Amino acid sequence: MKPIKVGLLGLGTVGTGVVRIVEGHQPDLQSQVGSPIVIEKVLVQNKSKERSISIHPDKLTEDAWDIIHNPDIDVIVEVMGGIETTKGYILEALARGKHVVTANKDLMALHGPEIIAAAQENNCDVYYEASVAGGIPIIRTLVEGFSSDRITKIMGIVNGTTNYILTKMSQEGAAYGDVLKEAQELGYAEADPTSDVEGLDAARKMTILATLGFRANVALEDVDVKGISAITREEILYAKRLGYEVKLLGIAERQDDYISVSVQPTMVKASHPIASVNGVFNAVYVYGEAVGETMFYGPGAGELPTATSVVADLVAVVKNLKLGVNGKQETLAYNEKKLKTDEQIASKYFMLLHVADRAGVLARITQAFAEHEVSLESVLQQPNPSIPEAEIIIITHDASKAAANRVLKSLEDMEVVKSIKSVYRVEG
Amino acid sequence: MKPIKVGLLGLGTVGTGVVRIVEGHQPDLQSQVGSPIVIEKVLVQNKSKERSISIHPDKLTEDAWDIIHNPDIDVIVEVMGGIETTKGYILEALARGKHVVTANKDLMALHGPEIIAAAQENNCDVYYEASVAGGIPIIRTLVEGFSSDRITKIMGIVNGTTNYILTKMSQEGAAYGDVLKEAQELGYAEADPTSDVEGLDAARKMTILATLGFRANVALEDVDVKGISAITREEILYAKRLGYEVKLLGIAERQDDYISVSVQPTMVKASHPIASVNGVFNAVYVYGEAVGETMFYGPGAGELPTATSVVADLVAVVKNLKLGVNGKQETLAYNEKKLKTDEQIASKYFMLLHVADRAGVLARITQAFAEHEVSLESVLQQPNPSIPEAEIIIITHDASKAAANRVLKSLEDMEVVKSIKSVYRVEG
Repeated sequence: MKPIKVGLLGLGTVGTGVVRIVEGHQPDLQSQVGSPIVIEKVLVQNKSKERSISIHPDKLTEDAWDIIHNPDIDVIVEVMGGIETTKGYILEALARGKHVVTANKDLMALHGPEIIAAAQENNCDVYYEASVAGGIPIIRTLVEGFSSDRITKIMGIVNGTTNYILTKMSQEGAAYGDVLKEAQELGYAEADPTSDVEGLDAARKMTILATLGFRANVALEDVDVKGISAITREEILYAKRLGYEVKLLGIAERQDDYISVSVQPTMVKASHPIASVNGVFNAVYVYGEAVGETMFYGPGAGELPTATSVVADLVAVVKNLKLGVNGKQETLAYNEKKLKTDEQIASKYFMLLHVADRAGVLARITQAFAEHEVSLESVLQQPNPSIPEAEIIIITHDASKAAANRVLKSLEDMEVVKSIKSVYRVEG
Repeated sequence: MKPIKVGLLGLGTVGTGVVRIVEGHQPDLQSQVGSPIVIEKVLVQNKSKERSISIHPDKLTEDAWDIIHNPDIDVIVEVMGGIETTKGYILEALARGKHVVTANKDLMALHGPEIIAAAQENNCDVYYEASVAGGIPIIRTLVEGFSSDRITKIMGIVNGTTNYILTKMSQEGAAYGDVLKEAQELGYAEADPTSDVEGLDAARKMTILATLGFRANVALEDVDVKGISAITREEILYAKRLGYEVKLLGIAERQDDYISVSVQPTMVKASHPIASVNGVFNAVYVYGEAVGETMFYGPGAGELPTATSVVADLVAVVKNLKLGVNGKQETLAYNEKKLKTDEQIASKYFMLLHVADRAGVLARITQAFAEHEVSLESVLQQPNPSIPEAEIIIITHDASKAAANRVLKSLEDMEVVKSIKSVYRVEG
């Protein structure tokens, strides 16, 4: 049996995990695919760096073209990250008939359609299970497990850093800044945490999930994004008191062929299965017209969990190689993309207002909601000794985003409304 | 594009769902497989019965051989249930080169290896995603999503009826008999509930999951089975007070190539993700050496959820047909089956004892555990005004099943032990 030769681009956390799994699980892998799988060559930044795994120095190279132009290599596994340079490597590898497995969410969110098209032209596979939710096989689930269904909603906790921060804030009543600092010390958050905490990382993953779930080419700029950096511990405490947890949710919805995709801090009813996903774990909740409610839970990052998905993709490529059916993945994005307008995007809202403490104020405020046809699920006016104003908490029934914005605009214009402290989407 | 013709064996709940999805999602299905998928012929018990779906009378037959011997039919979808007769139909269909999709857990648990071998001989596919956990694509997840990993533990809530009963008992403090009766009235439990409540249904599903997860042919008789019919509301209340939920768990474990599979009521720590799976929902928790903790949650039964999995399998068969690669699923059970002995099966235990209320009793009892080298995590002696004896609750550290049995035997022989009220496995 001819061994399958793999070129590995990158030997950071995930790359190291790929080497460990390919070597550690070799007998199992061979039993499944019928051939040895060999890591033939590895691209590194510095050949002489000390590493936690032993790898023959001859296998290391600092020149990507050593791998991409190597005719012996059947499959490229890209775990180096980056966008433009990496895209160049991948397109060139595909042009040379090499199959590609990548864990690169940024690349797939920005250039997925181009890369998939290049793969199909060259009869090559591109697999990217590890690009979303690390160890959870959510891409397979959407593409194959639910091939028969019409998915109408995907809600994901797809960023472990922000879920860790929000979990700590909720469980310990800690402040955002303190938890972020702790997360950075533990290695859960990067020195520059912007991409995680401002929701961009989650938006990239939701771009991929929405494209696969709705089978239409959703682009990153279609995603409405808001991060967690402005969340206060008071808001989280209010949410808990009302029976909600605050989670950074990616939400992709489809109704009558119109779709919307967003990432924002969301109040999730405590009884909803996604509300109890804590710490660095990820989860993707999928609602299908036929199947109903499902949820997929697991580690969203980490050396071995992410490498599990990468190597599972590698196994799929090798099985296709044996059968001679690489590059035959069906064109997934067969639906035209039609985006919802703000009039079509509906959800419940939580609003916390500070208002003048005098007679008739509540009536005027609820009148503003009525005028814009936003109906209310619950209204709570309560004293807050720490402020001179009265405090009003409103949870609406489903309202369009446009109507909610009209209400907010008219509240802003009211002299009796001192400030709109918080506005959250509500789920569950 | 030549239509793909399907012969449907059975038009009960799931069969009706299959017709609905194949017809309702036809444009989506065609976009994916490139051909119309047509339900050509349907086996029913009574052609003139009224049905909730409209289906042309010419398509109905009361004779299975009309379908199995029909040369136009490419794929058999078996949703009629039953074992021996059904197996005969499936083997004959495979011998005639027809691919098979089945939702039949009983058949696959008892005769899976024989059916898979027959399919391979005839270059045919056999898919059976719907046989376990209805709408959750757990078989794809084990076979493909985790192909790279070494799964060491699978815990499943794979029977909705018993989970409904236990959830009601836990949430409402209701008695087993009352909830069972209510479940029967709601159609969640059958008139003869034995197969569900005694754990047999769950054992069949665990046979399938353990075979796929550990890649060894586990047989139904390898599964150690205990049902829920003896559970009292008092036991559930005790569990809750200690921070546990009682769940009927299927547990498959592997250590150093030795495996064990069981189904039993288990006390699960409330913080474990599987503890909050309530009502008729199913969930499968999978632990892999590399991926770590994952869980897959969704509806375990029902017309459309189960049909979602059946039709997803049908899509897989049709894609294979287009590529000419049917019957090429790798031989999954490549590991030799080695079963753990009772000395190798380890878990924590909960024990509730009624003992003579006098000095030195607790010392004698804990001494019995020490003699058999079972160490204790917690011991609680408390007054129970409703009984003349003292009550002792013990939770052990991990102990072998054999050692736990030796302890129980020596407790039974002690004059001071009036009765061993409950013994539960503990997880989480």
